[in-house]
Amino acid sequence: MVDLDASIDLYERAFGARLGARTSSDTEGLEAAFLRTDSGEIELMRPTRDDSPVGKFLARRGPGLHHVAYGVDDIRQAIDAARAAGLELIDAEPRLGMHGSLIAFVHPRSAGGVLTEFVQV
Amino acid sequence: MVDLDASIDLYERAFGARLGARTSSDTEGLEAAFLRTDSGEIELMRPTRDDSPVGKFLARRGPGLHHVAYGVDDIRQAIDAARAAGLELIDAEPRLGMHGSLIAFVHPRSAGGVLTEFVQV
Repeated sequence: MVDLDASIDLYERAFGARLGARTSSDTEGLEAAFLRTDSGEIELMRPTRDDSPVGKFLARRGPGLHHVAYGVDDIRQAIDAARAAGLELIDAEPRLGMHGSLIAFVHPRSAGGVLTEFVQV
Repeated sequence: MVDLDASIDLYERAFGARLGARTSSDTEGLEAAFLRTDSGEIELMRPTRDDSPVGKFLARRGPGLHHVAYGVDDIRQAIDAARAAGLELIDAEPRLGMHGSLIAFVHPRSAGGVLTEFVQV
């Protein structure tokens, strides 16, 4: 399911999600929609290039769950705690995410196969 | 990563999660730990049999994200809305989950590859 509009519509109708921002990034090769539910936020993603990180993920694993993000107050502290716990950071330093927040990703091979993101909120 | 204790320890140290209930089910062939974060709940799962649903998932896809659950007030209403939106229910009727709540799963093939659960809260 790589039709972002159809996915947004489905999440609104089936899960009561409410569409917030839509954004795209040439650098990331990605179009994304952020939807709120009562207790969290869902990011629906569509690659705009096959060779983008999400495009490669889609080719390899098919559509499905991509990552989990934790909101944190202090992303540098979160990175330090993750590293101290033995996790491998993809982003050694925080970088600006598509949503305008500071983010950092943890490599799935160090976290039980789960691509994990910190988002400073 | 199928060592549940090691996974719990990692989630506590790296993500500040707090362990709640631990439970297991012979029927499901599953051992699970529920952890709270500031904004949600994480269920860490370890199959106790290779031929259980989670055992088969692990054999097919490897460790990683398994499903997403939405807390709902009225699970029958959620099932009806999901069906009306075109989703295919694995559980046509609510059933009792491991955590003592009424649950129902949506088939991933109808939801962009995402195994989706409703949990009455």
